[in-house]
Amino acid sequence: MRFGITFFPTVGPEHRGAADYYDEAIELAVLADKLGFHHVKTVEHYFFAYGGYSPDPVPLLTAIARSTEQIRVATGAVIPAFNHPVQLAARLAVLDNLSRGRLDVGFGRAFLPDEFAAFEVPLDESRARFEEGVRAIERLWTEEDVVWEGSFHRFGPVTLLPRPYQRPHPPVFVATASSPASAHAAGLAGRGLQGVPAISGRQGFLDILAAYREGWAEGGGEPGRESVQISFGLFLDEDGEEARRLGRYDEEQYSERIAVATRAWGKARSADYPGYERLEEAGKLLHFDRRLKENQILAGSPDEVIGQLKEVADWYGEDITLSFTVHSGNLPLETSARTLRLFAERVAPALAR
Amino acid sequence: MRFGITFFPTVGPEHRGAADYYDEAIELAVLADKLGFHHVKTVEHYFFAYGGYSPDPVPLLTAIARSTEQIRVATGAVIPAFNHPVQLAARLAVLDNLSRGRLDVGFGRAFLPDEFAAFEVPLDESRARFEEGVRAIERLWTEEDVVWEGSFHRFGPVTLLPRPYQRPHPPVFVATASSPASAHAAGLAGRGLQGVPAISGRQGFLDILAAYREGWAEGGGEPGRESVQISFGLFLDEDGEEARRLGRYDEEQYSERIAVATRAWGKARSADYPGYERLEEAGKLLHFDRRLKENQILAGSPDEVIGQLKEVADWYGEDITLSFTVHSGNLPLETSARTLRLFAERVAPALAR
Repeated sequence: MRFGITFFPTVGPEHRGAADYYDEAIELAVLADKLGFHHVKTVEHYFFAYGGYSPDPVPLLTAIARSTEQIRVATGAVIPAFNHPVQLAARLAVLDNLSRGRLDVGFGRAFLPDEFAAFEVPLDESRARFEEGVRAIERLWTEEDVVWEGSFHRFGPVTLLPRPYQRPHPPVFVATASSPASAHAAGLAGRGLQGVPAISGRQGFLDILAAYREGWAEGGGEPGRESVQISFGLFLDEDGEEARRLGRYDEEQYSERIAVATRAWGKARSADYPGYERLEEAGKLLHFDRRLKENQILAGSPDEVIGQLKEVADWYGEDITLSFTVHSGNLPLETSARTLRLFAERVAPALAR
Repeated sequence: MRFGITFFPTVGPEHRGAADYYDEAIELAVLADKLGFHHVKTVEHYFFAYGGYSPDPVPLLTAIARSTEQIRVATGAVIPAFNHPVQLAARLAVLDNLSRGRLDVGFGRAFLPDEFAAFEVPLDESRARFEEGVRAIERLWTEEDVVWEGSFHRFGPVTLLPRPYQRPHPPVFVATASSPASAHAAGLAGRGLQGVPAISGRQGFLDILAAYREGWAEGGGEPGRESVQISFGLFLDEDGEEARRLGRYDEEQYSERIAVATRAWGKARSADYPGYERLEEAGKLLHFDRRLKENQILAGSPDEVIGQLKEVADWYGEDITLSFTVHSGNLPLETSARTLRLFAERVAPALAR
């Protein structure tokens, strides 16, 4: 197993200023780099305290890349449906160069109706725009004089500048919260997978993982070279009770914020998003203690979290990369820093044995 | 007069790798910051060696902001016609926060037909999209629950995240190469002006300046608070002949690259771009010696450039900010660094007297 961190801010200006949030995230990323974490990842979201401090992951990841030596910088996810493929491909290629090849790119479909509405993109086009966008970006990264005649974009012949630093292009991941079909397609195309068992649940994520591995095999991918990143909230303290108290508080804030951001699912419906109308209830459905028991959240003393992670490895395999959601902005910097230090000093060594 | 620098890359992968170009630009920006320069600015361009290493100025400016203390970071220009106002407003607000309020924003209309074609934006909509985009962005920066019902975008109510660091918002400039009408509108709206006498010529730029000041007065702007930035290529050496040799070489590269990028004006025509069909000839029209004599390029020994800049101040006024286009990527880093040092140590003090 490899270990990275994810910044998913769930604060707005009424909770913490954006400049302070970014400075703290950069300070934690510098610490994570020194402690040997594999990657630092962030999201693309708009308008709401739920993710809205990261409307474009590239600037923050650039600041992090320029302040660190080894750690990879990752998107998880950027949204092809909301961006022109030329601009998204180009901006990511700039970051790949500024980090000298440390970029991993997770693409996602997004799921907040208010974001789709603002960009005048129908929810029902989500899957088609995702597919077209990712394919166009991969071609722009690897070919010259690209001519694109898609359903949503037509351009070319054009040659992207800058070219990506990594050849043929940065590793590509598909982020999927709940769709085995998306995971199968990701495997078939030889892409990596970003999953969130905290949303899909254990069985849901096992189904996603099975579909991904099946797609990978069908696509002729080399066995054992699948690439799976999964995200968990992580809260560590010498005192397990204190860790759970912090985790519960942070999750309460998260629940409040996702409830606001998903309110539009009260009236939105789309065949591209089966069952998402239930997200209106998302805030109420999260029960910290049950999620802890089902290893959807990791919180406790180092020994307790080691126990959780051994179960996670049993369930999902040893060959996965875990991404710990730390520092939503609702807890002090020092709390997140302590979690990172305890993980690196006490948890990771025990799992490597 | 205040002095800043502009990075306008005119290299592609066949000349210099993007990662090397960015690292050199950042190193020069760090030097410029130490030497007391006012700002560092870069562009938005696509596909061609002419500017194409900067398809989005935000990542490079972020890297610079995080490596410097005082220097302002500026766009010159970003293009509302090619970006959704929510995304451009948000990305710039992220940078404003990451730089803790050191951002100046120049908006431009763009002028390369191939860029318009790739984004499926008609040249004839250039002015209208510019106006709508800038107004929408200013509202997103300053208001909550913004409802926008424009000709090109409809959204809201939405509240932008993050909010800009500067209140009410970062200083706004309008970049115009040749349009007194755009300059007048910029003054009327209380915006700053970014001009390029190397394109408009002396009389052309005087007309632009007059229109801008007239608009400023009509709009009720406080006299003397107009904000004008103008760009010049700058090449300094103790040996004036050597400086001109370097300048001539760099300008030759620039001419070749702009000729390629503007080739599409051989067939494009638009009422929004009167006379631009002549740009097809742009590469051939640039005569270094004549441009030097007309102070469209600054090149020579410190004393010679002091003489040029005294004329520039006589022509355009003392209350302007000059932005020196350095480091296109065609000359070694040390050449550009020497120019910056000689300017700060020998030229600027003489002009301050």
